[in-house]
Amino acid sequence: MDAGGDDRAGPRVPTSFREAIAVERTLCADLAATLPPPPAAPPRLLVAGWVAHIRRLGGLAFLLLRDRTGTLQAVWEGAAGHLPAREAFVEVRGVPRAEARAPGGVELVAEQIEVLAVPSCPPPFPLHRADLPVALETLLEHRAAALRHPRERAVFAVQAALTRGFRTHLDRLGYSETHTPKIVGTATEGGADVFAVDWFGRRVHLAQSPQLYKQMLVLAGFEQVYEVAAVYRAEPHDTARHLNEYVSMDVETVLLAGGTEEALIALERELLGAMFGQVESDAAPALDLLGVRALPDPARAQVLPLQEALRVVGRPDLDPEGERRLAERVGDMVFVNEWPAAARPFYAMPDPRRPGSTRSFDLILRGLEVTTGGQREHRPAMLRRALAARGMDPGPFGAYLAAFELGAPPHGGFAIGLERLTARIAGLDNVRRASLFPRDRTRVTP
Amino acid sequence: MDAGGDDRAGPRVPTSFREAIAVERTLCADLAATLPPPPAAPPRLLVAGWVAHIRRLGGLAFLLLRDRTGTLQAVWEGAAGHLPAREAFVEVRGVPRAEARAPGGVELVAEQIEVLAVPSCPPPFPLHRADLPVALETLLEHRAAALRHPRERAVFAVQAALTRGFRTHLDRLGYSETHTPKIVGTATEGGADVFAVDWFGRRVHLAQSPQLYKQMLVLAGFEQVYEVAAVYRAEPHDTARHLNEYVSMDVETVLLAGGTEEALIALERELLGAMFGQVESDAAPALDLLGVRALPDPARAQVLPLQEALRVVGRPDLDPEGERRLAERVGDMVFVNEWPAAARPFYAMPDPRRPGSTRSFDLILRGLEVTTGGQREHRPAMLRRALAARGMDPGPFGAYLAAFELGAPPHGGFAIGLERLTARIAGLDNVRRASLFPRDRTRVTP
Repeated sequence: MDAGGDDRAGPRVPTSFREAIAVERTLCADLAATLPPPPAAPPRLLVAGWVAHIRRLGGLAFLLLRDRTGTLQAVWEGAAGHLPAREAFVEVRGVPRAEARAPGGVELVAEQIEVLAVPSCPPPFPLHRADLPVALETLLEHRAAALRHPRERAVFAVQAALTRGFRTHLDRLGYSETHTPKIVGTATEGGADVFAVDWFGRRVHLAQSPQLYKQMLVLAGFEQVYEVAAVYRAEPHDTARHLNEYVSMDVETVLLAGGTEEALIALERELLGAMFGQVESDAAPALDLLGVRALPDPARAQVLPLQEALRVVGRPDLDPEGERRLAERVGDMVFVNEWPAAARPFYAMPDPRRPGSTRSFDLILRGLEVTTGGQREHRPAMLRRALAARGMDPGPFGAYLAAFELGAPPHGGFAIGLERLTARIAGLDNVRRASLFPRDRTRVTP
Repeated sequence: MDAGGDDRAGPRVPTSFREAIAVERTLCADLAATLPPPPAAPPRLLVAGWVAHIRRLGGLAFLLLRDRTGTLQAVWEGAAGHLPAREAFVEVRGVPRAEARAPGGVELVAEQIEVLAVPSCPPPFPLHRADLPVALETLLEHRAAALRHPRERAVFAVQAALTRGFRTHLDRLGYSETHTPKIVGTATEGGADVFAVDWFGRRVHLAQSPQLYKQMLVLAGFEQVYEVAAVYRAEPHDTARHLNEYVSMDVETVLLAGGTEEALIALERELLGAMFGQVESDAAPALDLLGVRALPDPARAQVLPLQEALRVVGRPDLDPEGERRLAERVGDMVFVNEWPAAARPFYAMPDPRRPGSTRSFDLILRGLEVTTGGQREHRPAMLRRALAARGMDPGPFGAYLAAFELGAPPHGGFAIGLERLTARIAGLDNVRRASLFPRDRTRVTP
């Protein structure tokens, strides 16, 4: 057994990435698949990871080794004097052997253990248990330690599958991925909840959403765009559902053949179905770790006009308590449309059938708003009128309005909050748990 | 022919997204594929897009229609009195007909033209020509108009294919996609080139890179991570190669079996090969529009130590002129390694074979630095020593250093600048052309 990795910088030049990083290595989750049918000789493997646990029995030592895919048991029959501490990082070379009492029915008979790093202190909480019963504040304070726990990391396997499903489905439909600026001279909705940035001595803002940009891109001929990127809301809330920096999954598209917000609801329903399918196919072990038995079924989503939703929940507003009741009384997934113009931004399309109402919607997923969307006003004269009606200066919207003057098709879109969606899917009680390094009023570190 | 779309909000409820937005529609690029073999009757199609050009000949009108995929010719045999202006948005219903003189050998015989939007003014520059000979300033000022030109949009088809190839390749290798905060309490490299944000009365910064976070995530057990997100550099440069907000494609991975920066170079070589392959398969029409005949060949990439690179270019530093000469004298794609510690951040891994040198590299692509990367120091005592040697206060790096104290494997990574890479691939002379809405010292709008 070697004591360290400091002699690792020899003259060896790997000719391919696979040789140096991947091909020789067997992942914990793949150990069982390496067992050859008897009587073939077992292969010699390299596994690598953190020591989750060590148990001694007779002259043997059993190491539970953890990598990004899972854990395996390595049995060491050699000298036990210098076994590494928990959370040390080791490379182990050895051969697989069927062993009914080992996890997955297979263990690694270690022939060589190289310790690449030893911890200088124990982790701030026990990482080898199935649960991590630690207060949220502590989890966030010691984020890199907490994420060593497989269940904490599982949240982000679900999250990555959600974004992968989002992009894959929209790519298939011919959408363009875009990157729009988060540094803006104009606050999207004209609101006060914006963060100020000192930009070479000039005061600018962090984008609250890519709204104006995604619309300009549709009008510029992209027709269908999406973006997955951070947005910023300077809301002074300190709740389990608010982050001041979060990842917004934005969609915007032309609406042809008379399509309205109802076509957008149908699009989001299909899109979420594809995203949940991606989670089920790519993150099944993560769902198991999180104890998630079923994902919402977009085919069972309901569409309710706001007034009807309010009647069902018996509240004057669709506040957090109203959203919770909507889940209890209607279902997992409720699209609420027909929002009054006063509750929506200036660019919401009025509904010609219902004065004062708009072609907009929210999606309440398991009792939490995760999407706002709708058809947009595409007639520049009406946009100017909507700005004037709100007492907003059209000046800062010059480039936006100019894009409409050139001939703007009907269009609309929506935005899905990634952390909120992840939290609902993974069954988390606080949206912060669905952010690797959450940002709120008081937390800007780590 | 209808004059407007205001009667479009009828009671029709689409039951599926495809019905309302996509299925009925034929894209310009697909028109030729709709022609049935004779003697079958041609299908009735819906196409939609902007009127790029109108030509009258005898009693006929020929409309060149442009959508996100290309252009087609629609021939209108009806009354010519109310034909729409250039850049109007129309829905045209009709049947395809073979016509040798039309683009692609097929035209649409229009039976109904519905004008959904008319421009209130002509575009600020002619959009129907193959070229758009307009100064960069004008292009950026009128960005939504400029992007109507297919060649301007082609840049972003290439860009989207690059990011798609990046993610697809790394997903296949088992990397985790991550989202790390852009609001940070600690400047990554301890430098002065950071933007300040007012965060509820507290002064924080915009992230210069996800460096410290991606390392913490590798150490937290993700082992291999990537991120595609905006980063911010408050550099006061005003050159053709600098943006103050740009998209960084970041990679970080454990290095097993003695891997060093040479394994990372091999990884980036493979990764770029996959990304260029994605561009060739997904964005071939865009490459044609841009006049790009060949992409760089990662298999022919060279690896040169810095001192040898400097000797070849005859410069004291690898400055922009040096980078250009490297392309002329060595090749399209040159990885330069063995950088002195003084030229790299505190976290660069010293090279034990060469005192004062590090296990780091840059990639110079067609004469422009598009990547910086390297192996990182993973021994916490050495990290503290490196901070001290630079006179940097370890205090703000507390959570970062704590992640290393728990047992940190050897690791490393790199970052690719998306706009620079796009500009090199698409043959653009200014990196601003590879950004939808570029941000520089003076430009924060549109």
